[in-house]
Amino acid sequence: MPTQPFRGVLVPVLTPFAANGDPDSGRFIAFCRWLLDQGANGLALFGTTSEANSMSPAERMALLDRLIEAGIPAGKLMPGTGACAITDAVALARHAVGHGCGGVLMLPPFYYKPVSDDGIFGFVANVIDKVGSSDLRVYLYHIPPVAVVGYSLDLVGRFIKTYPETVVGLKDSSGEWNNTAALLDRYPGFAVFPGSEVFLLDALRRGGAGCITATGNINVSGIAKVCANWQGPQADALQAEITIVRKTMQAYPMVPALKRVVAHFHNDPVWTAVRPPMLPLSETQSAALITDLAKIGFALGERRQKAA
Amino acid sequence: MPTQPFRGVLVPVLTPFAANGDPDSGRFIAFCRWLLDQGANGLALFGTTSEANSMSPAERMALLDRLIEAGIPAGKLMPGTGACAITDAVALARHAVGHGCGGVLMLPPFYYKPVSDDGIFGFVANVIDKVGSSDLRVYLYHIPPVAVVGYSLDLVGRFIKTYPETVVGLKDSSGEWNNTAALLDRYPGFAVFPGSEVFLLDALRRGGAGCITATGNINVSGIAKVCANWQGPQADALQAEITIVRKTMQAYPMVPALKRVVAHFHNDPVWTAVRPPMLPLSETQSAALITDLAKIGFALGERRQKAA
Repeated sequence: MPTQPFRGVLVPVLTPFAANGDPDSGRFIAFCRWLLDQGANGLALFGTTSEANSMSPAERMALLDRLIEAGIPAGKLMPGTGACAITDAVALARHAVGHGCGGVLMLPPFYYKPVSDDGIFGFVANVIDKVGSSDLRVYLYHIPPVAVVGYSLDLVGRFIKTYPETVVGLKDSSGEWNNTAALLDRYPGFAVFPGSEVFLLDALRRGGAGCITATGNINVSGIAKVCANWQGPQADALQAEITIVRKTMQAYPMVPALKRVVAHFHNDPVWTAVRPPMLPLSETQSAALITDLAKIGFALGERRQKAA
Repeated sequence: MPTQPFRGVLVPVLTPFAANGDPDSGRFIAFCRWLLDQGANGLALFGTTSEANSMSPAERMALLDRLIEAGIPAGKLMPGTGACAITDAVALARHAVGHGCGGVLMLPPFYYKPVSDDGIFGFVANVIDKVGSSDLRVYLYHIPPVAVVGYSLDLVGRFIKTYPETVVGLKDSSGEWNNTAALLDRYPGFAVFPGSEVFLLDALRRGGAGCITATGNINVSGIAKVCANWQGPQADALQAEITIVRKTMQAYPMVPALKRVVAHFHNDPVWTAVRPPMLPLSETQSAALITDLAKIGFALGERRQKAA
């Protein structure tokens, strides 16, 4: 069995952009710190929710440098290596390993379609071999609704067999519970994180490692409670609490909506900025979202119980 | 009407890779020269066929530098700027403009899905504004079968209206003649290049500018003949000649198949190498492909007439 550096709730951290469009490292550091204070077990930087693919590899590496300089513990970080070119993915993975990051979250190459399992295997194997470090821990990032290209069940098995000490887990953002359940059943000891907290309790009961979820940016303490109490009598009630927040958010474009909520509750409008091709929420959408959250009694960081 | 730097057949040049996986600039330069000698009116470097998205922006820019140093005329070059991050697309477009390239071929950002026309407009407008050069000529690259994200008819009109001197054309690799025809009918003076020579004659007769086609890597002289004789009595016969080559190639994965044909006819096995996630043809596929081409009497550079 490989060592498993992550367990519990990991947050794919939103990336704040300054007025000139550049990543805002000051706000990013403060927000990462706040998420860890709120109970995040790890930070999955530079994923889909982070708009990482709207940033150059150099921009992502510079942000990671700032975070490490600010004293955020590298072991808690799982930076994404999303890239279509092996050269870019190698640079990002090497940089993360160089900083001592707990692991990396690896998208398959997502430009060419269709691609075969052999082709995807060739890409990831090439990256692992070129990084060439026993410190590298790879978490496969399966998100076919966005990347289109994904990791099949058989391909995951091939990675586990070929790189048992390196490919140690997977984030399943397929949105399909059957896929998550099949991964858990077929590969015990492999760290499977559903990409939505809606599946958190079901996953934990089946041997899952936790979850890596966008909504963690606004509800990490609620989600952490499910992780802490999943074997207790309150587990289902706590799960219901976090599910309703997720379902409320899902009625809106997720990344701009999360940024709007952070801007609202942190009282910092800079947070609403997204990079094209994303668009910020309209004023009408923003007002509706805040109203919807008020209706379910949501307050940032921890969901309040509605007064009975 | 904007100035139109390109007309005729443009070749999205295959990128050769050396045994260590690096782009092979020597072979690349020689091949570009050969294509121009064979009658290519321009070279659309770093597109889909070029495996450009399997190369980092730095690798692409270095290859362009080598090409310019070797004396390939910049005015004949239309490098792709394929990237999901504005920062990368700006760097690539600026570099091409700095070299005096005739234009650039611009993919929309292709990671996030779904994206709105407003979001895609925001991305491209941002790149154009940041490059900030009156020398920039943008050709939109519409290839939804691969990129998934594409340019709608209305969005193309919005670019033409907003940037009449900058956004001057489009490569239509939708594979849908109805889309090409609609572009030609709605936007006269806008340079529309179908992404397959199968549609070349039909496009020229409707006001098209030519074509930008993968198969140009092996059949540019045949395709150039259609461009030169499209108003003559031989036009349909010449079109039939190039269509059969394309249809033969389309039975195989296009990029590895083209590389196999180049390796075969240039007698240079190095050319078969592709970068993951692509895979080279198997020996069986390779043999079948060469046989299929022999059956239609194909010889590299110019299609021989079959003996009657």
